Amino acid sequence: MSSVKITRELHFSAAHRVFNPEWTDEKNSEVFGGCANPNWHGHDYRLLVTVEGTPDRKTGFVMDLKDLKSLVESRVIQDVDHRNINLEVSWMEGVIPSTENFVMEIWNRLVREFPEGVELSKLTLWETPRHCVEYEG
Amino acid sequence: MSSVKITRELHFSAAHRVFNPEWTDEKNSEVFGGCANPNWHGHDYRLLVTVEGTPDRKTGFVMDLKDLKSLVESRVIQDVDHRNINLEVSWMEGVIPSTENFVMEIWNRLVREFPEGVELSKLTLWETPRHCVEYEG
Amino acid sequence: MSSVKITRELHFSAAHRVFNPEWTDEKNSEVFGGCANPNWHGHDYRLLVTVEGTPDRKTGFVMDLKDLKSLVESRVIQDVDHRNINLEVSWMEGVIPSTENFVMEIWNRLVREFPEGVELSKLTLWETPRHCVEYEG
Amino acid sequence: MSSVKITRELHFSAAHRVFNPEWTDEKNSEVFGGCANPNWHGHDYRLLVTVEGTPDRKTGFVMDLKDLKSLVESRVIQDVDHRNINLEVSWMEGVIPSTENFVMEIWNRLVREFPEGVELSKLTLWETPRHCVEYEG
Amino acid sequence: MSSVKITRELHFSAAHRVFNPEWTDEKNSEVFGGCANPNWHGHDYRLLVTVEGTPDRKTGFVMDLKDLKSLVESRVIQDVDHRNINLEVSWMEGVIPSTENFVMEIWNRLVREFPEGVELSKLTLWETPRHCVEYEG
Amino acid sequence: MSSVKITRELHFSAAHRVFNPEWTDEKNSEVFGGCANPNWHGHDYRLLVTVEGTPDRKTGFVMDLKDLKSLVESRVIQDVDHRNINLEVSWMEGVIPSTENFVMEIWNRLVREFPEGVELSKLTLWETPRHCVEYEG
Repeated sequence: MSSVKITRELHFSAAHRVFNPEWTDEKNSEVFGGCANPNWHGHDYRLLVTVEGTPDRKTGFVMDLKDLKSLVESRVIQDVDHRNINLEVSWMEGVIPSTENFVMEIWNRLVREFPEGVELSKLTLWETPRHCVEYEG
Repeated sequence: MSSVKITRELHFSAAHRVFNPEWTDEKNSEVFGGCANPNWHGHDYRLLVTVEGTPDRKTGFVMDLKDLKSLVESRVIQDVDHRNINLEVSWMEGVIPSTENFVMEIWNRLVREFPEGVELSKLTLWETPRHCVEYEG
Repeated sequence: MSSVKITRELHFSAAHRVFNPEWTDEKNSEVFGGCANPNWHGHDYRLLVTVEGTPDRKTGFVMDLKDLKSLVESRVIQDVDHRNINLEVSWMEGVIPSTENFVMEIWNRLVREFPEGVELSKLTLWETPRHCVEYEG
Repeated sequence: MSSVKITRELHFSAAHRVFNPEWTDEKNSEVFGGCANPNWHGHDYRLLVTVEGTPDRKTGFVMDLKDLKSLVESRVIQDVDHRNINLEVSWMEGVIPSTENFVMEIWNRLVREFPEGVELSKLTLWETPRHCVEYEG
Repeated sequence: MSSVKITRELHFSAAHRVFNPEWTDEKNSEVFGGCANPNWHGHDYRLLVTVEGTPDRKTGFVMDLKDLKSLVESRVIQDVDHRNINLEVSWMEGVIPSTENFVMEIWNRLVREFPEGVELSKLTLWETPRHCVEYEG
Repeated sequence: MSSVKITRELHFSAAHRVFNPEWTDEKNSEVFGGCANPNWHGHDYRLLVTVEGTPDRKTGFVMDLKDLKSLVESRVIQDVDHRNINLEVSWMEGVIPSTENFVMEIWNRLVREFPEGVELSKLTLWETPRHCVEYEG
């Protein structure tokens, strides 16, 4: 039997500042522009979590969507929603919070949490309505 | 010459009930929650059909989009739109109508219907604005 | 100080059948087409609730959005989500569940529930991504 | 000749904290929840600016959309995009940055700036994909 | 009994050129920029037609949505879809095809066509995903 | 370190006519329908450009999004926005402007322009809100 991918979309709102702590404010402003603003800015992030597996014969489900939602909420959303990503998210400590780095750390938070037979397949993270990142591990 | 994918989006509205007929109502309600409601519930499904091929030298088309739309309408949409998926769709008989199982049966309805040189590449089926399934055969 | 409108969007999935019980199945099918299917069909409804008032001097809020969400969930969403509107919603009994009638009954469920100084201003109910109804009481 | 409304949508990303400086942190947290987080959070705001007037006989325009965009960018967007609304926006000083208060101050920034015959009709400000405010002065 | 508004969304794709035939090409280019390009440009227009009335006691409908769709298709869509608005639409002859003028002419095509008890309430015409016009007669 | 994909969405509005110059008007109309209209029609194209690479250790970026936007604007958007694709785009000369052929030529405009370590991964081009093409080279 073939494998199917299922995707659940979740939202969170957070503040961040994209800067390199080894650089001066001038250098950060030159490289990152407004994204390096020391007073922070923020986004309504839109996260799509895709997992893959063979549907269970008894339920027709790769994974129960309520379980998928709960897992992502407990491992990711509750840590970042209405938070400052630079200051308050332990698993982002020491990481420049670009969308690229952020999605890779979210992957690490999730990849080992799925039941047998279900694999994390892709994360898509929209930072604004105009740009997103995709990560497949 | 390289191959290109083209995707057409179609919509339909249907009722269904996700339950396992081998189980009691209690067990179904425990596993599937509101999705097992014996009085049915329903969705506005959004189906994206992706086919792949090399554009024809004389038309620039992988496949005429009107033909693609007609094919999906005649093989899928007219069977399911404003229908009860459990009771009225012959090719879903005996299948638990989870989104996963549903997209695999839609694949079976379409995969052998394309002209030479055109292959069904992917189906994406959104059951609500918050979750979808993807199937590549 | 001027009044401001705030809107919260909520979703629910339900089954229904649009038919007039005083008519024969033939007549219903003639008038309502697939919407009268005796085996039901369903939708992912999208409800936008708009209330109006003067922002409170101490909070800057017309009404706390969490309270607005809770109110609509307890008075409307929990009654209709994953339900059959014809069979299971007491406040729709004896009402033909057209989108027009449905939005007026949702209005009746909500209009007297707001705190002093806050008025229900408009309900917008999308039944499919292609059509909606608006009601202002 | 009748009047027509034209609307231009613009986006910006900002950080903020919704709190009342006359209250303790405990009281703020109790009333505003995560929105009062002293470490800030943020949003991708979506602003729709609607103006009204009679189309000019020579251009068919109520107002040139490029002019409308420039006006909103110079009076609003450049002040708030990638900024901290509490700390860096002079015209929000002393104002609790709820969406309600924010939209009223944006109105004040724009209302007297339009050419003769064009009137600001409505502002719609989406703070998240799930809620918005509307203001008509 | 109160009145309810119902809205149907329809799409069409067309070419146009916004220019004043009394002006030189230079003057047109100065005023209208790329919109005056003599070689045309085009849009995927999104038209929302809103009508108002009291729901019929026997159907629960203000107006059958299939009838509303047919009416707009026969009076508007079939004239403009995959057409050049300046050259091929008789009821736009002599009219500068700004979105403002266009929506007023669409209004004239529709306003007298509704059955008794149903009134055209509003037209909303999106020319791009970033701007729209609204007209209420 | 793993590679990440980043996507930027851009828009443009253009006119075109899909026809084969080796055929008669009758044959073109038979094959292409309204798309072959000699008076042109047009679309609001939505282009998603996806590039892939390993995030830079010092910035956390695969590529600066402002640079990605500038590159696509200078190589593609400024050539096609508010233009006639058949008549005014030098790199579409002699090419039937189907969405399939169009996306392949946009690929050719972009593929060799990226800095070392960054690769063009996919282009997705929506011609209407209902259909798109995808190309991966």
